[in-house]
Amino acid sequence: MSKQGDHILAGVQAVATALKAGGRGIQRVRVTEDARNQRVHDLAMVAQDAGLDVIRERRTRLDELAGNTRHQDIIAELSEKSLNEEDLSRLLDRIEGDPLILLLDGVQDPHNLGACLRTAEAAGVHAVIIPKDRSAGITAVVRKTSAGASEIVPVFQVTNLARVIRSLKERGIWLAGTDDGSAASIYETDLTGPLALVMGNEGQGMRRLTRELCDYLVRIPMSGTIESLNVSVATGVGLYEIRRQRDAGR
Amino acid sequence: MSKQGDHILAGVQAVATALKAGGRGIQRVRVTEDARNQRVHDLAMVAQDAGLDVIRERRTRLDELAGNTRHQDIIAELSEKSLNEEDLSRLLDRIEGDPLILLLDGVQDPHNLGACLRTAEAAGVHAVIIPKDRSAGITAVVRKTSAGASEIVPVFQVTNLARVIRSLKERGIWLAGTDDGSAASIYETDLTGPLALVMGNEGQGMRRLTRELCDYLVRIPMSGTIESLNVSVATGVGLYEIRRQRDAGR
Repeated sequence: MSKQGDHILAGVQAVATALKAGGRGIQRVRVTEDARNQRVHDLAMVAQDAGLDVIRERRTRLDELAGNTRHQDIIAELSEKSLNEEDLSRLLDRIEGDPLILLLDGVQDPHNLGACLRTAEAAGVHAVIIPKDRSAGITAVVRKTSAGASEIVPVFQVTNLARVIRSLKERGIWLAGTDDGSAASIYETDLTGPLALVMGNEGQGMRRLTRELCDYLVRIPMSGTIESLNVSVATGVGLYEIRRQRDAGR
Repeated sequence: MSKQGDHILAGVQAVATALKAGGRGIQRVRVTEDARNQRVHDLAMVAQDAGLDVIRERRTRLDELAGNTRHQDIIAELSEKSLNEEDLSRLLDRIEGDPLILLLDGVQDPHNLGACLRTAEAAGVHAVIIPKDRSAGITAVVRKTSAGASEIVPVFQVTNLARVIRSLKERGIWLAGTDDGSAASIYETDLTGPLALVMGNEGQGMRRLTRELCDYLVRIPMSGTIESLNVSVATGVGLYEIRRQRDAGR
């Protein structure tokens, strides 16, 4: 469900990162006419140089467009087009080397989803896959929390997660599901090669069908009493261990 | 600054974890008289068996005590005593093997601080040190976000961070500061031995004095455009790499 604010990227850092990455998906930039922050003016120049429309207008208009997100005198309006399964297939065709995919099976909290996207971008993930239903969507809060990553790392919102997983497997991509009760730690498991890391949601973990489609399950070791990490922290620990193993094997 | 709600642990998961860890610091437990969730009744039994007072009362009273935190019909009231530098010294005297300390130099967002504590507990950290000023305190939101870790891992709120760092160094504990601009990746650095990992705040990183007191600086490699990870994700990636190196060296 799309609502006002979902296609708005708000705040200096988020807009700066999206522009730095080439401004893909940005339709136009709006800044307040009385902005005092020099970084806002610098970003407006960058956007203009990139051929984007920059509109200066009243603060109340930006407040309205950004909804509850703090805009710091600058917002970017994004294309409403979302990426689907066909787009994913085209992207996978183009990847050179071993694909690294992040599959989030129903993350509910927009701050967690945003932090997962930020982490995925930083760890060099090629694509993030999320289900259309039973998951936070790419809202203004997600975009802001992702620090701009939502405009850089391709995010695919798919209707049939099981079908997408099967198509990944047909391409030779292994599915590693994270499960707190699994016997094998990520440090005892070979995570090199074409891989999709599957994270469950905050409460219940992966859904049954998703779990059954995984090629193997791994856990992040817990040293104390707490039973699990926050999903974005677990995503970071998992993705960075994959990267470490890949780089060590070169 | 202490305000109502700061010494309250709210919600089923947070209270369950604190009780599971022995209930250290819990003064009493309050449940709503009309609670329907069986887990609430089970936890009340556990608390009673542990010798704690369990008070049943009106929902409005719990709403009042929990403030803005969702209490799910159960709260635990905590001792107001906070741990200081002398307590830290006593704890360090007792650690067997190499100490692992997390030092958070001014994390501002209570959700980030809570997630850092949760991660620290899961990674087997002995103590977390935060400055009294210019840092989020241990509020109800922090306790909730930490999933109960705030009642398990000892958190020391210190007035003079520089003095504490010097005392850690006198004990032979190395200080590894994280800095996005540092030359050495955590994967190229020996992180075994007695160590304190130092994380900066969300915007500016470590303060100048803290940085100067570090024995060395490390970075978490960034593969894309984003310049840094969320502080709790970075804490997770850093602490788990330390654990991995320690376990590999055994």
